[in-house]
Amino acid sequence: MISPVAMTIRTPKGTRDILPSDKIKRNKIINILTTTFEQYGFNPIETPALEMQDTLASKFAGGEEILKEIYQITDNADRKMGLRYDLTVPFARVMAMNPELSKPFKRYQIDRVWRNGPIKLGRYREFWQCDVDVAGVGSQLAEAELLALSQHVFSHIAPVTILVNSRCLLSDVLTHLGVAEDMQSSAILTLDKLDKIGKTAVAQELKDKGITHHDDLLAVMARSYESNEQLLDWLSQRMGETQGIESMRELLRFCAGYGVTPVVSISLARGLTYYTGAVWEVYSATGVIKSSLAGGGRYDKMIGHFFGGGQQIPAVGMSFGLDVITDLLDILSNETARGSVVNVLVIPLTKRIDNVLPIVAALRKAGINTDLEMTGRSLNKAIAYANKLNIPYVIIVGDDELDKEVVTFKDLAKKTQRTLSITQLINDLQL
Amino acid sequence: MISPVAMTIRTPKGTRDILPSDKIKRNKIINILTTTFEQYGFNPIETPALEMQDTLASKFAGGEEILKEIYQITDNADRKMGLRYDLTVPFARVMAMNPELSKPFKRYQIDRVWRNGPIKLGRYREFWQCDVDVAGVGSQLAEAELLALSQHVFSHIAPVTILVNSRCLLSDVLTHLGVAEDMQSSAILTLDKLDKIGKTAVAQELKDKGITHHDDLLAVMARSYESNEQLLDWLSQRMGETQGIESMRELLRFCAGYGVTPVVSISLARGLTYYTGAVWEVYSATGVIKSSLAGGGRYDKMIGHFFGGGQQIPAVGMSFGLDVITDLLDILSNETARGSVVNVLVIPLTKRIDNVLPIVAALRKAGINTDLEMTGRSLNKAIAYANKLNIPYVIIVGDDELDKEVVTFKDLAKKTQRTLSITQLINDLQL
Repeated sequence: MISPVAMTIRTPKGTRDILPSDKIKRNKIINILTTTFEQYGFNPIETPALEMQDTLASKFAGGEEILKEIYQITDNADRKMGLRYDLTVPFARVMAMNPELSKPFKRYQIDRVWRNGPIKLGRYREFWQCDVDVAGVGSQLAEAELLALSQHVFSHIAPVTILVNSRCLLSDVLTHLGVAEDMQSSAILTLDKLDKIGKTAVAQELKDKGITHHDDLLAVMARSYESNEQLLDWLSQRMGETQGIESMRELLRFCAGYGVTPVVSISLARGLTYYTGAVWEVYSATGVIKSSLAGGGRYDKMIGHFFGGGQQIPAVGMSFGLDVITDLLDILSNETARGSVVNVLVIPLTKRIDNVLPIVAALRKAGINTDLEMTGRSLNKAIAYANKLNIPYVIIVGDDELDKEVVTFKDLAKKTQRTLSITQLINDLQL
Repeated sequence: MISPVAMTIRTPKGTRDILPSDKIKRNKIINILTTTFEQYGFNPIETPALEMQDTLASKFAGGEEILKEIYQITDNADRKMGLRYDLTVPFARVMAMNPELSKPFKRYQIDRVWRNGPIKLGRYREFWQCDVDVAGVGSQLAEAELLALSQHVFSHIAPVTILVNSRCLLSDVLTHLGVAEDMQSSAILTLDKLDKIGKTAVAQELKDKGITHHDDLLAVMARSYESNEQLLDWLSQRMGETQGIESMRELLRFCAGYGVTPVVSISLARGLTYYTGAVWEVYSATGVIKSSLAGGGRYDKMIGHFFGGGQQIPAVGMSFGLDVITDLLDILSNETARGSVVNVLVIPLTKRIDNVLPIVAALRKAGINTDLEMTGRSLNKAIAYANKLNIPYVIIVGDDELDKEVVTFKDLAKKTQRTLSITQLINDLQL
């Protein structure tokens, strides 16, 4: 029988608690991201979880439509605000509110966002985004840097394939195939569904939209190539060396300088309409996870809009998906998930507990994650606790050990035991 | 003239953006806290920002009163929730929802909380709490561990004084002085204001509450002692060796085992009524900041209430104030705040930019935080940018350098310059 009190004890729909074994894994990924972001010269910032509804729903950000998807809040003075649904709009707002910031301004933010919407499998209403953006660089050196960063991040996690395209190149192809300029955005949105709904459905949707030559279009999209050069040369022979082709060749040259080889994928579009240049997505190279692990692109117009349109601020950014990367790590890892950060559990088997505490203090001072058994339970129960949490070592301190100024050290995995001094112990554990 | 767009660009009242130089400082403190918490065997968890209003306003947590102070939210299915106002109530909820968790359960959480209330100087409506709690330990070894942790954390920041008291000891004194048991909570709330409103006002308030012997009470509270032992012995002579005195002597003995010496302060109460045992607060030893930097205590009843009252789960916890510790660090630090995490800015003075990129990649791969000048501006402007952000070094790579496979290395603080190979450079920077 559930008591009335127990019934109210739950987390809001679409949210969850993350307990130690999962949080330890997520912190590991966040550490890789943070360290790499900083190696690439990005600086941390923080913005509030709450934003004014005016900002969130501005027509250059989410538009009025977005209000349906955000958690709306009214404060004690009836100000209308909401929980942010991404980190890009707050970044644009920060740029607009701080025109004195030196540019290029390179920032990262690893933080929560919220969407008050329908919950899909594995999707939450509260989740994390890990964003890096640079404002104030028009050169594609910025894109190349982020592509190199993607490769670098995943070199610590799993092999990946990076697909790259550009809105400009895609537009050149569409123009060449006779798609009128005012239909191109719409055509791109449909082509973006190729992976999801398949070729036949995309052909039908293009036809329904009145886009002619859709067979030619799909033929170009579906064509396979042995190399980026082969694809670009083939396009160049048909369309001439367009600006889109030239610009893609430049990006690939910068990437080569950084030792990164993305694969040009002419059908890649990334839904968002605010992209103005290159776009890319990162996938698992072995395909163990199908969804995109990270992605980004250039958006040269959005930030300027927040300045009232009086200023153009070119920007490039990307986002890493913490949930999907955690899933990837789970699939690939052979290690048992650690239930605890603790390396050593000290078990006192003496009434002279005051004399055991300096040993615990010495281990901690030496930087070793140490816990003390404090409940007075039996040795067997204490060891069972250590085993359950995957704590690798226990130290037993009884009267005999205290008298001889030693400890009994047990390696729980190897099931070995030895007696040694505190100094020896610390030396051994620090190795 | 402010344009209509610019007018909507602001952060919600009581919230703020934290830009790189401040965020770098805060991350430094968070790193100290995280590392130390883990050295003491506490594990990370995460709970959602949103909680059900039932949980937040339960009579064992904030009570109905708290609803006035929380940001209330209704989701798309009319569920009533709110942004959490602390991390202790979510911790109690996690314990109740996960009865299978091995105990003792030691967790830390460094995260945002929100209060939709009046804003005092330096107080925000969105702020961070840094909490460590242990559930399942009845022994005062748990308190001693947290007092040792407090000392350890601040050993990296600034010297502190730790004041300690216990509800039990305070209650013994009140009983001895003739304050009826049902008046003691009320008396404690008044005594807690000693520092804020002074002796006269406290005496008046005690009198108004009908508490007799308030002069004796204040005399005991205000008495100064040379040592904890002197105070406890003096009390013992008058009241007998009460349970409160015995228990405080035990706590001090455990603290001595950990090498920590808190100061017993009989007037310390810490407002919250949920404390059941020891309470403590951490202050700057030099008094450069008056407010408490951290504090905590034992609360043996709260978690059990979330289980429907059927189970007692003893708990001890404490909270570190990120804002006040940041202020302390600001006052004490002689260093200029760093505007950037970047150590080296690479400035290309060549059109062969593709050949400069491998140098940037090599520095980053070696773990050196490196930025690349990507705007094509002049050397002087690039160096001015580095100076403004306190980037310590720049590397200049021109055609001459590329031909000779060297770089020009400038130390901006020392105003020195030398020519060296990439390998030498990396060796020097890694020192």
